[in-house]
Amino acid sequence: MKAKVPITSQKRVVVIGGGFGGLKFARKLAKYDFQVVLLDKINYHQFQPLFYQVATAGLEPSAISFPLRKVFHKQDNVVIRLAEVTSVNTKESFVVTDIGEISYDYLVVAIGADTNFFGNEKIKSNSLPMKSTVEALNIRNRILQNYEEALSIEDAADQQAHMNIVVVGGGPTGVEVAGTLAEMRKNILPKDFPELKFERMQIYLLEASPKLLNGLSQKSSEKSKEYLDKLGVNVRLETRVKDYDGNTVFLENSQIQARTLIWAAGVIGNKLEGIPADVLVRGNRIKVDRFNKMEGSENVFALGDVCFMTEEKFPNGHPQVAQVAMQQAENLARNLGGILKNEDMKPFTYRDLGSMATVGRNLAVVDFPFMKIQGFFAWLIWMFVHLMSIVGAKNRVLIFINWAWNYITYDQSLRLIIKDPKKKK
Amino acid sequence: MKAKVPITSQKRVVVIGGGFGGLKFARKLAKYDFQVVLLDKINYHQFQPLFYQVATAGLEPSAISFPLRKVFHKQDNVVIRLAEVTSVNTKESFVVTDIGEISYDYLVVAIGADTNFFGNEKIKSNSLPMKSTVEALNIRNRILQNYEEALSIEDAADQQAHMNIVVVGGGPTGVEVAGTLAEMRKNILPKDFPELKFERMQIYLLEASPKLLNGLSQKSSEKSKEYLDKLGVNVRLETRVKDYDGNTVFLENSQIQARTLIWAAGVIGNKLEGIPADVLVRGNRIKVDRFNKMEGSENVFALGDVCFMTEEKFPNGHPQVAQVAMQQAENLARNLGGILKNEDMKPFTYRDLGSMATVGRNLAVVDFPFMKIQGFFAWLIWMFVHLMSIVGAKNRVLIFINWAWNYITYDQSLRLIIKDPKKKK
Repeated sequence: MKAKVPITSQKRVVVIGGGFGGLKFARKLAKYDFQVVLLDKINYHQFQPLFYQVATAGLEPSAISFPLRKVFHKQDNVVIRLAEVTSVNTKESFVVTDIGEISYDYLVVAIGADTNFFGNEKIKSNSLPMKSTVEALNIRNRILQNYEEALSIEDAADQQAHMNIVVVGGGPTGVEVAGTLAEMRKNILPKDFPELKFERMQIYLLEASPKLLNGLSQKSSEKSKEYLDKLGVNVRLETRVKDYDGNTVFLENSQIQARTLIWAAGVIGNKLEGIPADVLVRGNRIKVDRFNKMEGSENVFALGDVCFMTEEKFPNGHPQVAQVAMQQAENLARNLGGILKNEDMKPFTYRDLGSMATVGRNLAVVDFPFMKIQGFFAWLIWMFVHLMSIVGAKNRVLIFINWAWNYITYDQSLRLIIKDPKKKK
Repeated sequence: MKAKVPITSQKRVVVIGGGFGGLKFARKLAKYDFQVVLLDKINYHQFQPLFYQVATAGLEPSAISFPLRKVFHKQDNVVIRLAEVTSVNTKESFVVTDIGEISYDYLVVAIGADTNFFGNEKIKSNSLPMKSTVEALNIRNRILQNYEEALSIEDAADQQAHMNIVVVGGGPTGVEVAGTLAEMRKNILPKDFPELKFERMQIYLLEASPKLLNGLSQKSSEKSKEYLDKLGVNVRLETRVKDYDGNTVFLENSQIQARTLIWAAGVIGNKLEGIPADVLVRGNRIKVDRFNKMEGSENVFALGDVCFMTEEKFPNGHPQVAQVAMQQAENLARNLGGILKNEDMKPFTYRDLGSMATVGRNLAVVDFPFMKIQGFFAWLIWMFVHLMSIVGAKNRVLIFINWAWNYITYDQSLRLIIKDPKKKK
């Protein structure tokens, strides 16, 4: 069955995924004389860097989400379909989706990455990942629900297990969520649950490597640990999680009792059936050349977290971050647009604009290529950069007000367990 | 099993339900020397009058919800439990909940009302009610999902059925949701879905009685119909829905094809097992005296939508609106508080402060006891009153910004289908 998509005289570029890479690419390519068909499973773009604030009740999902259709109100050569792509036929140039087949002249695979549980099904089913707005909301619901349940528990050890939180993965996500939880433990939770003793609540941040924030400078890494120590987070480096049954976190030589385990330990490229196995490298990434063209193909491209491109300075591929995806998207749009004018393609070169992570109130680390900053000023930069990066002026205003409010009142006020009470847990 | 609730020397008042009545009552009673145990299935208070704006993507759930625990940060004689009350034992004075039994000295039943489907199971399972934040979100998701699906439909009649919306019930909720949908059809949906022909989308408002807004004045009723006509809503009075199978709405002598039916046609008191059958009157309401005391009981009270009290001016009971619940809550708190000082109880007298409903942009009707107003000025009053009634200063600010933004841009921007894409529909 063919999907119902308008047929025009333009060449059709099908883009799978409306994340940082896919959305930027579609916006840029829409300026050229192509028909752009954007496919996604969800009808909004998600601003991943702030998932942790949704998880910790500081922001609403809507503040960091933006309806895809709204982005393209003025571009009538863009067709959007809410669809799940099940496979691609690269020989005959069409994708198979749950709304039918869609043929393409060029295909851009921007399906991103999902949480990597490294094959451990038990960890997967018992822990909480944070790679989507919905998953972030699940974390919020679970944490709040745990405290509600803790109130009814007589056994002290069991009660503490309901209060403890283990975060696995010392990247920016792990650092940010652990820091924010520590702030909540200090400022809000004791007020919400005066019957619980929050001095007994433990927050752990476990990292398998010897340092936090591996992508950042040594100085930033050390500072972030120092900040987390100050906030009372138990940071354990060179610590691997062996298993988790929903109650006990099994480490190499010890155990931690915790009902909540947030898993931010790694990502793996989303799979798309039909992509030849021999172009997939470690972490399910699709091997592409410097033009983001998939190895062995003429009209299939991949960009962002799901692609693997090497440069002289990046012999092991680029870091899987938004900046890479967005820069690749711009370059690829220009290159494809250039085809219409018979221009030569330009190879992609990554310009590292810097990395940053926030740990808590007034505490952040920022690595610019020309300068490293930590502390209050870094925290202001972090906020400014994130505020400016979010899609939609209204989101910007609402996030700013939320942040200002939370800062002044020491209160993340969105502590709502929003789920259907008519359904059983 | 006994629930874990602190035991104090104070008399214990158990309140079931954190709606308008229950919340107000708990806040007022907390000033007296009682232990107040507030039980609810959800951890936040919901501002029902704005559910329709959540359903039509104008407001976020969090903007009209307020965490119950936050309300009582400074009242340490208030104990909150997230619990589902399954029954009450009025003889031995305890309630049975999913977290155990809780004994009481006084019980206040403020469990409100739910949607009344008048026994039609088929309508119940196929239509969308709007009596909770979650149900309002379901409506939003369903409507947006329908347009996404409509894009893939070849058959013109089927496509139109996906676009049509039928609202049943001409009270404030029905009028407000129908009017807002008409605004969306005019201003937003054609921009979001340029491939669909929205001049073919029909919005119906069906009301069984001969007029809209039955609780309001004749003038307001007529004006609201006039406004809806102007907005292109098909208002059909004296029209009863016989049945609905998810595709076809069966009326007395005709049918309407529509995939979405919003059911706002009536309410029925929530049931609590253990309340004697002989005190229940029509619509499951609990018969109480002028002190909100349940008939035949000494220490069980009921207030708000779930109670039935007659006054000289209200021989058939009070209207089931927030104003009644809140006024009863204040009176009952004062009366129970008076027991501690051996004061006499004051009988309740309802003071009707007026009713209002908004139809659309610049269009509302307001009935004050001393004046009836329609149109732009009524619309300003409506906004002001609702803004001032919402719990939480931050909610007030965020709603105001949202409204101002939506007004200026003609755009409800929260068109996000937030549900787990990993789960099947």
